[in-house]
Amino acid sequence: MSESASNSPSPNHKNQQNISNYCYEEIEIGQNICVNRTISGDDIKLFAALSGDLNPLHLDEDYAATTTFGKPIAHGMLCGALISATVAMNFPGPGSIYRSQTIRFTKPVYIGDTLTIDLSVTEKQDRSKLVTIKCIITNQHGKTVASGDAGVIAPTEKLTIQTATLPTVSLGEKIYCAGK
Amino acid sequence: MSESASNSPSPNHKNQQNISNYCYEEIEIGQNICVNRTISGDDIKLFAALSGDLNPLHLDEDYAATTTFGKPIAHGMLCGALISATVAMNFPGPGSIYRSQTIRFTKPVYIGDTLTIDLSVTEKQDRSKLVTIKCIITNQHGKTVASGDAGVIAPTEKLTIQTATLPTVSLGEKIYCAGK
Repeated sequence: MSESASNSPSPNHKNQQNISNYCYEEIEIGQNICVNRTISGDDIKLFAALSGDLNPLHLDEDYAATTTFGKPIAHGMLCGALISATVAMNFPGPGSIYRSQTIRFTKPVYIGDTLTIDLSVTEKQDRSKLVTIKCIITNQHGKTVASGDAGVIAPTEKLTIQTATLPTVSLGEKIYCAGK
Repeated sequence: MSESASNSPSPNHKNQQNISNYCYEEIEIGQNICVNRTISGDDIKLFAALSGDLNPLHLDEDYAATTTFGKPIAHGMLCGALISATVAMNFPGPGSIYRSQTIRFTKPVYIGDTLTIDLSVTEKQDRSKLVTIKCIITNQHGKTVASGDAGVIAPTEKLTIQTATLPTVSLGEKIYCAGK
């Protein structure tokens, strides 16, 4: 089975939505889901504010121009955040317990890049309900920018829950909208 | 050598600061740095806005009370973001190339927890300049909440750079201040 979704939330994700999960029993080796996300300069600023990583390589065009990257790049771990959100929201979804993640950062992510977060099941452990999920993030050119494995205890019961709402997030005068 | 620092940035990290790096030649097996960070409800909201993970387990007290955690918990990958920022800002610092990370999420992180991000060097590869850094995050009770290994290409030249500035980040009417 293969599914595809676009995580292009409305501004600040203010609209509640229902999310459902995949139970351990429903999950099959090879099962796959893809989510797309475009990376904006505001996404990078927000990651910087949250993490405290203010290296100008991510935030300052003039400085980034002096580096081998030529222009600002996203913090690598933003890819980790996107994988974790895809596990939590899409597959297996609510009720999952995120146990571990490995991630290799293989190519830079630039502002405006559209990433595809591709999760596919490679292993199931019936006793522990641990599911190993191969995670590959590619850019719009088909190049892998990050990859690794998630270890997730899959839920044992079907669950549909309503997402939470957030206050409006602003950067200066501008309302933040993920990916915009 | 052991160093300790507190990443308690001023509101929105608006004050520029100089950050310096550790070159590959200066780095020794066993070298260690610790950074502290308290986790606020606003940190969790910002991670939710950025990643798109709006699971109410992280954001809704009433919902979290119905789960085994009892109260809202931080997204596990927020720990990943803090490790990555410590690598970029503190050790080895600017000029590092972040190649990989493994992370295991072992205990929940609650609002108000004060985390210690502890990095220590376990391996150096002279040819590639790859440094393996053991990363352990503990809470104020000394319990490990996350741990893993970072793979970082250490810089070969000394570098001191000025951090970038950010626009003011707000959540609703409230100005965001990391950890507050």
